[in-house]
Amino acid sequence: MTAPKPSSLAFVPFVSVANMMEIVHRIGLENMLRDLAEYIEDDFRRWELFDKTPRVASHSAEGVIELMPTSDGEVYGFKYVNGHPKNMKEGLQTVTAFGLLADVGTGYPVLLSEMTVLTALRTAATSAMVAKHLAPKGSKTMAMIGNGAQSEFQALAFKAICGISSVRLYDIDPAATKKAMQNLEGWGLSVTACRTPEDAIEGAAIITTCTADKQYATILTDNMVGAGVHINAIGGDCPGKTELHKDILLRSDIFVEFPPQTRIEGEIQQLDEDYPVTEMWQVINGEVQGRRDNRQITLFDGVGFAIEDFSALRYIRSKLEETGLYQKLDMVADPDDPRDLFGMVQRAKS
Amino acid sequence: MTAPKPSSLAFVPFVSVANMMEIVHRIGLENMLRDLAEYIEDDFRRWELFDKTPRVASHSAEGVIELMPTSDGEVYGFKYVNGHPKNMKEGLQTVTAFGLLADVGTGYPVLLSEMTVLTALRTAATSAMVAKHLAPKGSKTMAMIGNGAQSEFQALAFKAICGISSVRLYDIDPAATKKAMQNLEGWGLSVTACRTPEDAIEGAAIITTCTADKQYATILTDNMVGAGVHINAIGGDCPGKTELHKDILLRSDIFVEFPPQTRIEGEIQQLDEDYPVTEMWQVINGEVQGRRDNRQITLFDGVGFAIEDFSALRYIRSKLEETGLYQKLDMVADPDDPRDLFGMVQRAKS
Repeated sequence: MTAPKPSSLAFVPFVSVANMMEIVHRIGLENMLRDLAEYIEDDFRRWELFDKTPRVASHSAEGVIELMPTSDGEVYGFKYVNGHPKNMKEGLQTVTAFGLLADVGTGYPVLLSEMTVLTALRTAATSAMVAKHLAPKGSKTMAMIGNGAQSEFQALAFKAICGISSVRLYDIDPAATKKAMQNLEGWGLSVTACRTPEDAIEGAAIITTCTADKQYATILTDNMVGAGVHINAIGGDCPGKTELHKDILLRSDIFVEFPPQTRIEGEIQQLDEDYPVTEMWQVINGEVQGRRDNRQITLFDGVGFAIEDFSALRYIRSKLEETGLYQKLDMVADPDDPRDLFGMVQRAKS
Repeated sequence: MTAPKPSSLAFVPFVSVANMMEIVHRIGLENMLRDLAEYIEDDFRRWELFDKTPRVASHSAEGVIELMPTSDGEVYGFKYVNGHPKNMKEGLQTVTAFGLLADVGTGYPVLLSEMTVLTALRTAATSAMVAKHLAPKGSKTMAMIGNGAQSEFQALAFKAICGISSVRLYDIDPAATKKAMQNLEGWGLSVTACRTPEDAIEGAAIITTCTADKQYATILTDNMVGAGVHINAIGGDCPGKTELHKDILLRSDIFVEFPPQTRIEGEIQQLDEDYPVTEMWQVINGEVQGRRDNRQITLFDGVGFAIEDFSALRYIRSKLEETGLYQKLDMVADPDDPRDLFGMVQRAKS
């Protein structure tokens, strides 16, 4: 009896943080944001066929650890992600993540990837893809309230996907704004540091809020928001964490990813459980109108949904062969005879 | 400004399949089964403090992919595991798995490990630990119905933990029995191959059923089971998959891990939703009596619970330093300034 070689399925391609950063540079950040937006938009179009479940969250005093699974029937994916606002003060990331794709037919993993960097990219790509459908046509200026880890990715995604040419930055901490200013130098955007949120939203057709406090905050109050703007609210993403005053919500038409999750985690946790919202996939499919007129305030209450991570992992998987930027992990036990796991372990005795 | 080195938290210890097999040999299989049983028993003792949720399952025509999270408030863990009965015919594992531990305080992963081998070990250790509490005192003979990938681990766990000296094997496929006979040679067990289930249970004080069909099967019928035995039923572990005739359940006292999960996945899915069962952690804590007398049939309806995986990962983590059997994965992006993820990506440009 000849012993067959270990099947290639025993080895799972792993994209490390270093690999991911190299992929970004190889493809180009703005190209990658555009590619990701296309993959995400494609998956929003086939939204109905996905297995959808609100994320599975484990809350503690300091933060939350979540698993976000989904499947399109052929490929299964999930993301592990934490959210620990107090990490920043300890020199750690507020959000770290990794993700996995597996073959539904066999259950074998086919990709393991870092997703701290990838989540930043997919969040920005999702926001800009949504704004492409909802923001006033010809929007050129975006206000960016909150200049943390997500801010530069948002600015460049809105440039690459929506044609934004000017960004107005505000953060409660001027050092964050200074960092974002420096990072955005040389990217072809006109960037202005602002001293107040009111100053930042001056002349902005798009307002992005992305702050990280785990508490009910009011980054924007009602009197600050004029008619016709698109608000991209992505910082409020867990129970007890919101950014907008309730009155803004009541004046806006609200667009969401997956209502059962957004009602728990998004800005709309401030509203009644049956307050009407529009599912973004229906706008993208043309089933429901997005923006009706130039007086309407559109609000994307983005919390991040598993399908966006799935799209992002699907994209990375499509680039494995082209870039070669991965290593193979010996992650799946694969005995010659599948019933002989014990024998495989015994034969490994050195 | 000096650039601090990447924190050690950016690298996650990874125990590959090869590492895990080497750990088994370094520690010794029976020692490791005993150690794992102790870790699992310890966690059953502090059962009440764990975050418990039924596993999150994604079912397809061919099988299931599941995430099993839990937390003891300090450490968070989850396992990814698939179950694809048809895999075996394609030369693949029915069950593959990997798992992760993370620090609840920061959300940062602290261990990634293969769990195909480790799940086989923890399942066997759990069964034997439970039988230590429930099986008739002085049990020496176990019937093993189903001689697949789990069978040898079960046999050796019952030897190491319960003092079994004789195992009677039966499988619908004689090749599986032959494989198990060969694998169990030299381990100090008296092993007998049997031609029928009736033959296998002859004189056995413990009956283990571990078969893999995803359908309602009747591996044991009522007339086969005599008074006083302990049944360790671990093959029925998903909706629609059971091994025992309902009448056996009605004659037995039934012990389970986590009732909300077992009622969906275990043998007791055949019974009414409020049929009385005993939670094993209460027996181990001494709160509830296990075996009352030598006529009673005790039945462990084992489906595998997240806490057992947590215990197993906790054990592996405790052995990292001693064995050095792991590699470090560049899995967590860790910029010097946590708000400067963008800057980290830019600086990686070669």
